Amino acid sequence: MLKTPKGYKFTALEGGFKYSGRDDLALILSDVPAVAAAVFTKNKFQAAPVTVGKEILAESHLVRGAMINAGLANACTGAEGIEDCKESLILAAKYLSISERDLLPASTGVIGPRFNMDRWREVAPKFKKALTENDPVKAAKAIMTTDKFPKLAWGEIECNGQSVRMLGMCKGAGMISPDMATMLGFVTCDAEVDPIWWQDALRRCINKSFNCITVDGDTSTNDTVMAFANGASGVKADDDATKKSLEDLLLDICQQLSYMIVQDAEGGTKVMHIKVTGAASDKDAELMIRAVGNSPLVKTALFGEDPNWGRIVAAAGRSGADFDPEKLTLSFGKIVVFENGKPVEGDMDALLEPLMRKQDVEVNITLGDGEGSSLLQASDLTREYININADYRS
Amino acid sequence: MLKTPKGYKFTALEGGFKYSGRDDLALILSDVPAVAAAVFTKNKFQAAPVTVGKEILAESHLVRGAMINAGLANACTGAEGIEDCKESLILAAKYLSISERDLLPASTGVIGPRFNMDRWREVAPKFKKALTENDPVKAAKAIMTTDKFPKLAWGEIECNGQSVRMLGMCKGAGMISPDMATMLGFVTCDAEVDPIWWQDALRRCINKSFNCITVDGDTSTNDTVMAFANGASGVKADDDATKKSLEDLLLDICQQLSYMIVQDAEGGTKVMHIKVTGAASDKDAELMIRAVGNSPLVKTALFGEDPNWGRIVAAAGRSGADFDPEKLTLSFGKIVVFENGKPVEGDMDALLEPLMRKQDVEVNITLGDGEGSSLLQASDLTREYININADYRS
Repeated sequence: MLKTPKGYKFTALEGGFKYSGRDDLALILSDVPAVAAAVFTKNKFQAAPVTVGKEILAESHLVRGAMINAGLANACTGAEGIEDCKESLILAAKYLSISERDLLPASTGVIGPRFNMDRWREVAPKFKKALTENDPVKAAKAIMTTDKFPKLAWGEIECNGQSVRMLGMCKGAGMISPDMATMLGFVTCDAEVDPIWWQDALRRCINKSFNCITVDGDTSTNDTVMAFANGASGVKADDDATKKSLEDLLLDICQQLSYMIVQDAEGGTKVMHIKVTGAASDKDAELMIRAVGNSPLVKTALFGEDPNWGRIVAAAGRSGADFDPEKLTLSFGKIVVFENGKPVEGDMDALLEPLMRKQDVEVNITLGDGEGSSLLQASDLTREYININADYRS
Repeated sequence: MLKTPKGYKFTALEGGFKYSGRDDLALILSDVPAVAAAVFTKNKFQAAPVTVGKEILAESHLVRGAMINAGLANACTGAEGIEDCKESLILAAKYLSISERDLLPASTGVIGPRFNMDRWREVAPKFKKALTENDPVKAAKAIMTTDKFPKLAWGEIECNGQSVRMLGMCKGAGMISPDMATMLGFVTCDAEVDPIWWQDALRRCINKSFNCITVDGDTSTNDTVMAFANGASGVKADDDATKKSLEDLLLDICQQLSYMIVQDAEGGTKVMHIKVTGAASDKDAELMIRAVGNSPLVKTALFGEDPNWGRIVAAAGRSGADFDPEKLTLSFGKIVVFENGKPVEGDMDALLEPLMRKQDVEVNITLGDGEGSSLLQASDLTREYININADYRS
């Protein structure tokens, strides 16, 4: 059922860097150099692996894969953190018989503490098994932190009679945060692609997936999504139809994965699908959707299964978006609750009860007849979120 | 001990508009016309009393006082809500023997439902007692919604040998929200003031008090602060020294009241005093301080008494403020925990424990040698906040 793209190996091992009794290091390795695209966090504080990864990609788009550790973010660790990151790559390269410029690093976990390099040196010989083992689920489990389940999505398409496969994995307990940071994503594909198109396609897909979710509005120092394409399927994405099919698949996989992050939001019980349409511009729609999706009041109401439209229109009103309040229409699913500047009459609470009980709740806001629109998936805010985050360091 | 400014009456009564068994309507009445200044919410959805209050003040700065009801916000109620608001003023004016343009209206409570005007008509004859009763604490209690205590602050200064008194009250359980909205504030003073200076002074004081607090980042449809000055003390604020003394007192009262709102934040247990200095501009400092003060991760860590600097620097990093991460210095009180791009070594958790156990926690961020700075008081985010807001409508 899970069809791995050709020419890749996935493995994981127990490094004992922070956790014990579980895998905490994953390796994704292509048999041949693959075209790599990557999108990194915009946080001003960039973790060491982000800095090093950018450096490697600035030299060449062709790499062999990625090495990911969970538990320590290697962020805010200064020049020493960069050195530690580079040494970990040299160690891995040695046992995989590749160059240290062939692996992109990624880290997730606690900010601040440095790697224990003695531990890395001790563990490095085990990396060899990455040359033979092929278990993406194991790899997806190894990169988890507060995640409650591993996150994988895959697909296969036919291009000119030949099969192309794509597989993605990510971690993120919705908490896009600095502490049990963060959101990391890895997509592998066995098509042959143009590096510039692949980077553009990845960015477009991220804008419609990982950038359309929110748990707590925080953005970590380590957020990274990488996509590899090694050509092992023999399919070249050199015509528009093939590119379109591949990008559709990439988007589908990114959206499946990003939904899973919201679904697995720390303490989360529900996913709110917010849609703003008819805005004067996409920017206005975006401002409004973020204000609604990040409002603690809206998020606690969602948790309480309360169709509290007052909190939504008030968040919309303070969002900074340009709109006419008299023209705003708000509906849950297809049930309109607010229009023409006032609530729709009737026992809406009773009508809405079955909708609010669902795990997925649709909130639709129409602002007028503008062209601007935006989508966002947001988690609810629960007692469990507080428990996880207030008591985290104990 | 509580010295009421001269020439004002404060009263409250049980209107039974939403609550029962408690006062829910307050009247503040000056014996003579008072100069009124007011600052209203910037939310695009403006409650009926906000619209009507602006209309009254556009005609004249001279009014006799304010009528405030708790329980119903009269927001998002359309043209009918405006009519209801105006009718309530006409009713009050009738029994107080004043004009309906002499009272500024303010409402706080649930968004959406209309006033029951039959109930208003029934209650209105009771308003007469506002002409004789003088109990500011009773009035401050009547405007509470989820507040746990009434919020009052007052002071007296000597100006050219004569005494001037000022008294402020506000409501706000920190939740600057659309539902059990909102933040309302009323200041009375017995000096004689110039209306333009009074309005400017109020705005300057609000920018350093009510605009420097956050509980959940939401802004309601009803937020209003009004300040009245009736001249009953015989003191004219017509020289710079008197104006300065009065404005200092006004600021002090506004800051006392705004602190009380954060202290009474829904579910809140602590107040974080965040200070950003050395920023390239005030705007950069402001961006950063809001990102830190509204971050659910920072707020839950505060609740957990966890000096989690990683969450603070990551919020700073994503804030959009322009700064050099290598130059950021973060301290709790006077204890520096992060500088030169990395954490200060040592058992900081042990050192910080006594600081974190306090109700008031100071977070200081220095960004460099710029002139920009900003201050913010923020509450923590707790299980109780979720309980209050998820289960509100039950």
